[in-house]
Amino acid sequence: MSKTNAFYAQSGGVTAVINATACGVIETARQHKDRIGKVFAGRNGIIGALSEDLIDTSRESARAIAALRHTPSGAFGSCRYKLKSLEESRHEYERLIEVFKAHNIGFFFYNGGGDSADTCLKVSQLSNSTGYPIQAIHIPKTVDNDLPVTDNCPGFGSVAKYVAVSIREAGFDVASMAKTSTKVFVMEVMGRHAGWIAAAGGLAAEKPGDPPHIILLPEVVFNEKRFLAKVEKSVNDYGYCAIVVSEGLRNRDGQFLSDVGTRDAFGHAQLGGVAPVIAALVNRELGYKYHWAVADYLQRAARHVASKTDVEQAYAVGKAAVQFALQGKNSVMPTIVRKSSKPYRWSIGATRLARVANVEKKMPRNFIDKEGFGITARCRTYLEPLIKGEDYPPYKDGLPQYVQLKNIGVKPKLRPFEL
Amino acid sequence: MSKTNAFYAQSGGVTAVINATACGVIETARQHKDRIGKVFAGRNGIIGALSEDLIDTSRESARAIAALRHTPSGAFGSCRYKLKSLEESRHEYERLIEVFKAHNIGFFFYNGGGDSADTCLKVSQLSNSTGYPIQAIHIPKTVDNDLPVTDNCPGFGSVAKYVAVSIREAGFDVASMAKTSTKVFVMEVMGRHAGWIAAAGGLAAEKPGDPPHIILLPEVVFNEKRFLAKVEKSVNDYGYCAIVVSEGLRNRDGQFLSDVGTRDAFGHAQLGGVAPVIAALVNRELGYKYHWAVADYLQRAARHVASKTDVEQAYAVGKAAVQFALQGKNSVMPTIVRKSSKPYRWSIGATRLARVANVEKKMPRNFIDKEGFGITARCRTYLEPLIKGEDYPPYKDGLPQYVQLKNIGVKPKLRPFEL
Repeated sequence: MSKTNAFYAQSGGVTAVINATACGVIETARQHKDRIGKVFAGRNGIIGALSEDLIDTSRESARAIAALRHTPSGAFGSCRYKLKSLEESRHEYERLIEVFKAHNIGFFFYNGGGDSADTCLKVSQLSNSTGYPIQAIHIPKTVDNDLPVTDNCPGFGSVAKYVAVSIREAGFDVASMAKTSTKVFVMEVMGRHAGWIAAAGGLAAEKPGDPPHIILLPEVVFNEKRFLAKVEKSVNDYGYCAIVVSEGLRNRDGQFLSDVGTRDAFGHAQLGGVAPVIAALVNRELGYKYHWAVADYLQRAARHVASKTDVEQAYAVGKAAVQFALQGKNSVMPTIVRKSSKPYRWSIGATRLARVANVEKKMPRNFIDKEGFGITARCRTYLEPLIKGEDYPPYKDGLPQYVQLKNIGVKPKLRPFEL
Repeated sequence: MSKTNAFYAQSGGVTAVINATACGVIETARQHKDRIGKVFAGRNGIIGALSEDLIDTSRESARAIAALRHTPSGAFGSCRYKLKSLEESRHEYERLIEVFKAHNIGFFFYNGGGDSADTCLKVSQLSNSTGYPIQAIHIPKTVDNDLPVTDNCPGFGSVAKYVAVSIREAGFDVASMAKTSTKVFVMEVMGRHAGWIAAAGGLAAEKPGDPPHIILLPEVVFNEKRFLAKVEKSVNDYGYCAIVVSEGLRNRDGQFLSDVGTRDAFGHAQLGGVAPVIAALVNRELGYKYHWAVADYLQRAARHVASKTDVEQAYAVGKAAVQFALQGKNSVMPTIVRKSSKPYRWSIGATRLARVANVEKKMPRNFIDKEGFGITARCRTYLEPLIKGEDYPPYKDGLPQYVQLKNIGVKPKLRPFEL
């Protein structure tokens, strides 16, 4: 059998476990040195391929690669860069082939979300259109959990756990302050157009009255009057109200709540932050003292409280991607297949990339309760296994020890390329 | 020896480990049943004493009390309520004595920060002025770390650890996104007028270039020009810039940066949030893409990533408070005494309350580097041991198992009291 090199790149927003996937890819490739030569990583994602800025992962020790499993973020750098259609930017695709040829790359592993799946699909089609033999495998990753076909997405379980743990802890805090001080607490979480991350906050509530009392999902149009009534009822019934709000929350005009025209002292638009908007609304209309938090990157980088299930799945899809490649597959993505929820059992499946690219999976209606402010038992059954298990990184002097790779570049062989 | 009951109350903002102190108080008291009858806890702090709303902690199992050690927030409720001077509100102090008498309370344990120390001092003086024998012991607690005499304050070590871990993780995230996306990340932390919490973020940086690159302390007047130059240099040198900013940051006029007159779309003042102000400034002046986070309650409630040192010290001051009471002490506070930094060794000392009440300990100048944007080696030596060690709570189904006490009330014996 012939032996070619592999290319691996991280794409889009990073997660607490995308490096566990990188670890799965590299460790598995190293076990098949008869078939796979080196694994080159793109420095800053696909940009590294276009600009021939390749990292030679063979220069990293087994120990450093193993440490990727417990290191958050993208060890090789990621990017937000979407290749256009073949017609619109043929020169970019031609450049990719040129770089692949120059470095004898026969396997293309692209680790990202929906946009990346689309890019990967296009690369997979180059094999036919150009005659250059390249097998393109997409590896799922997104905290937003919005990829279709796969039961869930690596990266989501850990942010879900972070959000559930955080709102439970902050809920305890507010409960103890509510008598004379803060009565309403608002925590903003990520998720874009999909409410998966916000919904995960609901796992913290095990019995009626437990926080969070309200979850504001992008799938449900924000109704100010009903929301305020619910806040008031929660404060009356439990003494306080803990709220999880998704950054993607919109009003009935389709406007983001976080973008309703707030201005700073100089009249400049104040970007981002739906939590302060919700908190100020509560204060204005109901007079309650409030606090708010915006977790932002903290939530998706929180490897210290990662889900063990998530880490294992992130590793498994990386490993499976290499196995698929060795089986001669092209234009596929490993998926997570749920075999049972209680007890939780899963395996790795495969799907054609054409089924994944540019499809966004939102929360199904039956995961959202009638009022629209909480999750159903069905949703809980789905979410619960994904946050299960702890997988702590090693600590030294009180801090988690994350690896920083050497990231030694490969000498370019081609002329520079204008991005 | 006579046997009397004890009163314990939690005051002010709660922490990840104030319940560990409660655990220390109650477990130690239970070991001395010959001298201490019951431990009554104030429901919602001192308000519980004034309103004769006492919780009978003897109704809680040993297991539930032990679980307080790993449960964040105030298990009996806290409050923000400061008693005025004896002259101004004599009726409140008289009421306290009345409640103490009615429930045979001879020991008063007050668990809080600077304000509470003042209240506790006044209560300790009641013994002389009223002839009613009460021993008042203050037990230190504050995430702000701003109490004098004691080397550090229980509650601080855990929030310090949370902040250092979080900015390390978010720093890794930004580093991997910086090529095409976010270049500047701003994380806002607590600490009021003292920069201790923000300074703790500096522990994440072990070598030049590590995040955070800038720490904005309330002890250093914000200089926009120098700040922007430093941001630009960091982005040029390292590709990105991670910033920790204290909520108490002020400009040269003494104004809080978080309160520079931001208005929402309706013209209402938008409260809180120095992080978005800093982020917007960076974007406006330098054009960098940014993200920001406001950790708020998440940081002080984060028992899941508590410092083991902090948990042990929180327990120890609770235990010591009871021992001091049994030794006949009044008007004192247990302190943490540092005997050595490397290796870290500490013991429990005692100080007179008069030395503590209403004194605020800020960061010493030699803990802040020359530029004013970072911490010195001396500061690092001070902070490092305080975040050392992990002390994970038990988990079930992916979530930490925190205890909710029964909190059974004691039947009131007196007439109601108007607060």
